[in-house]
Amino acid sequence: MIRVTIWNEFRHEKTEENVKKLYPNGLHATIKEALEKLAPNEYEIRLASLEMPEHGLTDEVLNNTDVLLWWGHCRHNDVDDAIAAKVVDHVHRGMGFIALHSSHLSKPFVKLMGTPCTLRWRCADEKARMWKVNRIHPITKGLPDSFELEAEEMYGEPFLIPTPDDLLWVTWYEGGEICRSACTYERGFGKVFYFQPGHESCPSYHNPYVIQIIKNAIDWANPGCERTPLCCDSQEPFAKIGK
Amino acid sequence: MIRVTIWNEFRHEKTEENVKKLYPNGLHATIKEALEKLAPNEYEIRLASLEMPEHGLTDEVLNNTDVLLWWGHCRHNDVDDAIAAKVVDHVHRGMGFIALHSSHLSKPFVKLMGTPCTLRWRCADEKARMWKVNRIHPITKGLPDSFELEAEEMYGEPFLIPTPDDLLWVTWYEGGEICRSACTYERGFGKVFYFQPGHESCPSYHNPYVIQIIKNAIDWANPGCERTPLCCDSQEPFAKIGK
Amino acid sequence: MIRVTIWNEFRHEKTEENVKKLYPNGLHATIKEALEKLAPNEYEIRLASLEMPEHGLTDEVLNNTDVLLWWGHCRHNDVDDAIAAKVVDHVHRGMGFIALHSSHLSKPFVKLMGTPCTLRWRCADEKARMWKVNRIHPITKGLPDSFELEAEEMYGEPFLIPTPDDLLWVTWYEGGEICRSACTYERGFGKVFYFQPGHESCPSYHNPYVIQIIKNAIDWANPGCERTPLCCDSQEPFAKIGK
Amino acid sequence: MIRVTIWNEFRHEKTEENVKKLYPNGLHATIKEALEKLAPNEYEIRLASLEMPEHGLTDEVLNNTDVLLWWGHCRHNDVDDAIAAKVVDHVHRGMGFIALHSSHLSKPFVKLMGTPCTLRWRCADEKARMWKVNRIHPITKGLPDSFELEAEEMYGEPFLIPTPDDLLWVTWYEGGEICRSACTYERGFGKVFYFQPGHESCPSYHNPYVIQIIKNAIDWANPGCERTPLCCDSQEPFAKIGK
Repeated sequence: MIRVTIWNEFRHEKTEENVKKLYPNGLHATIKEALEKLAPNEYEIRLASLEMPEHGLTDEVLNNTDVLLWWGHCRHNDVDDAIAAKVVDHVHRGMGFIALHSSHLSKPFVKLMGTPCTLRWRCADEKARMWKVNRIHPITKGLPDSFELEAEEMYGEPFLIPTPDDLLWVTWYEGGEICRSACTYERGFGKVFYFQPGHESCPSYHNPYVIQIIKNAIDWANPGCERTPLCCDSQEPFAKIGK
Repeated sequence: MIRVTIWNEFRHEKTEENVKKLYPNGLHATIKEALEKLAPNEYEIRLASLEMPEHGLTDEVLNNTDVLLWWGHCRHNDVDDAIAAKVVDHVHRGMGFIALHSSHLSKPFVKLMGTPCTLRWRCADEKARMWKVNRIHPITKGLPDSFELEAEEMYGEPFLIPTPDDLLWVTWYEGGEICRSACTYERGFGKVFYFQPGHESCPSYHNPYVIQIIKNAIDWANPGCERTPLCCDSQEPFAKIGK
Repeated sequence: MIRVTIWNEFRHEKTEENVKKLYPNGLHATIKEALEKLAPNEYEIRLASLEMPEHGLTDEVLNNTDVLLWWGHCRHNDVDDAIAAKVVDHVHRGMGFIALHSSHLSKPFVKLMGTPCTLRWRCADEKARMWKVNRIHPITKGLPDSFELEAEEMYGEPFLIPTPDDLLWVTWYEGGEICRSACTYERGFGKVFYFQPGHESCPSYHNPYVIQIIKNAIDWANPGCERTPLCCDSQEPFAKIGK
Repeated sequence: MIRVTIWNEFRHEKTEENVKKLYPNGLHATIKEALEKLAPNEYEIRLASLEMPEHGLTDEVLNNTDVLLWWGHCRHNDVDDAIAAKVVDHVHRGMGFIALHSSHLSKPFVKLMGTPCTLRWRCADEKARMWKVNRIHPITKGLPDSFELEAEEMYGEPFLIPTPDDLLWVTWYEGGEICRSACTYERGFGKVFYFQPGHESCPSYHNPYVIQIIKNAIDWANPGCERTPLCCDSQEPFAKIGK
């Protein structure tokens, strides 16, 4: 079983009625239930959130996480720097990392990208249509050419992320923008996936395509092995030098 | 004229006789002279180094730098965090950045990459041959299919950098390794180039091909405009929402 | 001066009144005039079209062309196979090639891509907005974050081109699709650019941004040297084998 | 079970003693046996070769092939154009295609790439060391940082292939060259993998790492579904045009 931890800052669901209604136990719990329903015996899923000790990301938890999902929005700054650095270190040594929606500005994601990660945005509950622009990546498997999200927050260019290793989806927004909304990156020995949908007041995590993509991304990001050490030692040559 | 600043930690040239002999005024001075000789009126070049106040990278200097070259090795940790962060911010807003040789582990480069940037290495003054693997990038213009460096430090895989936007050269080492030795990256509005040659005890910065590549890289990395602000405001739609 | 040849099948402009009105002497002539006005002494531009002997692409013309622009639509099949093969060969040896709009299905472009190059499409004179998704490529220089085309043919995914070396623009269409509308490719020693705007009944080639992009693309695709021979000979080793 | 067809021009094994000794029933048979031994019940493997009717690639065979492996060298020109075109069409609609060694100049591969695919080369039975330059692609899974091939033909730059979607291995050769030796490409709905090792007089297909990579590549290239039709019809809009 793949060991998944879903981290959520878990704030909007407690303070805003419309969000609580959509995601009564937190959007991390909604994603967990949907994944367990879709693939009953494939994942061992743990939830973690900001207010837990060490944000729920103790060494024990991180050491036993194959893939970490992250959702943060208005409380990025409350995440402890040391814990963000520890997450980055685990990714470098192999842990998969999936940054959801407004986590584009979360501490671990920004550190992993090395870019500002800023973007255009608009909260207008507008229609969005996600277009698949890659037909061979495992994360796109089984998904249709396009699908609609009935309401989402707009994210658009200039979206200052690095050029993706693979750009998988581009989103069309009713208001006139496009977004590179599903992107993969190699970071050390770890795989990183950014996935745009998931504004707290929108029902995207109830959308079966969104859940299928998250499932595919977990399967892809799973390292399938223990953490890989980073080696910096001087090396003996394979061939004779100075012939 | 393109305003270039060449930063050097400038240590080995003062403490090791063989290095001093190769680069009497510092390798940054050698690069400056070579560029000025190759292209007399194209660059306004300033030198900066670790021991200068603010490492020679005051706001005034950074604000007037189009492209920053960086060489560091044994004193990465002595670079002030705030100055490294300022360099990264300038790159994000458009300043070109060229990381030379062991600067793969410098603070600004590591922050810009988001990866460990560790690698295999060996100091054996071995032969190296650089092979061009891209024929259309402006940095490769005018360079032959391959050229030899009579002696270099070996850098090799696993080289934990992000997948380059463009991989331009791969180096063959006598001892049996290869290195992705010339790589480009988009970072915000700025262009970043990593270039492997340049161990302090090797004469690579006296090699005309190396200098030609550095010149091409400066021309490529030059933003050709003032810093671009990072925008994070909410945006009005272009098309009507909710038809 | 960069020697540019603009090839046009030149049919719609003769048979359809609305097209003739937009592009009285052919859209190739319109592009020529716009480029000469934008950059008076930079280009030596020749026009060529289907009905000319050898389609206007004699050896003499091709040998003296640095960058070839191509516009074809309803008469792809009337292009002689041998001439299409010759164009491909010139690209392989260094000639720049810019495929405009419906030339995604032209013989030279399809041969250069190796993919079906099919796509979704719709002729509805709908609004299109082009979004820049790369901020460092020379073709994007000086262009705004986005600009509108008042009416264009929709091209959309699945657009079966190869993954671009660089994806420069993505177009938003009023009707709900997106298009990877500006893509670069290395093909042998030659550079290839695909650029989506330019349906014959739409005024896109009168749009200054479109012309600026075509200008930037010509400058980028210009090889700056004579054709490069393709070498297939056995090679002597640089280092001793069998130590 | 994944349905694999291994195609071999099957000439050297009949005419040269040293090749016959290494691959008594043809190198395609050696690969088949090695795969069946490594993964007993995963593949249904069929052999095909040049001298068979329709080169063994009838519609029935191609329609029932998930992944086609191809080895050709001195008889590329004897492959029927129509059959090569049929192979390309199957790849476009989803069939996986793995081009082995000198198949870089085979008709199907060259058509799929759109480039000359020429390269430097030397037959000197020299040592080669393959270096992994990507740590997250499924084809690299379980392979060490590097491994040695005791004798191979050298292939080197300029290797006029398109920029790979993913560059997985680079080979170091004793004689001083490097090769981009393991490359992936999206081509329509199909996945293409080029893999350099496998000169007919070298024992590379007896190397367990080589076989593991071929196995990983088959698993990766398997479309997991029937052929996908190429659609070219005009499309209804999703959103209202002309508001």
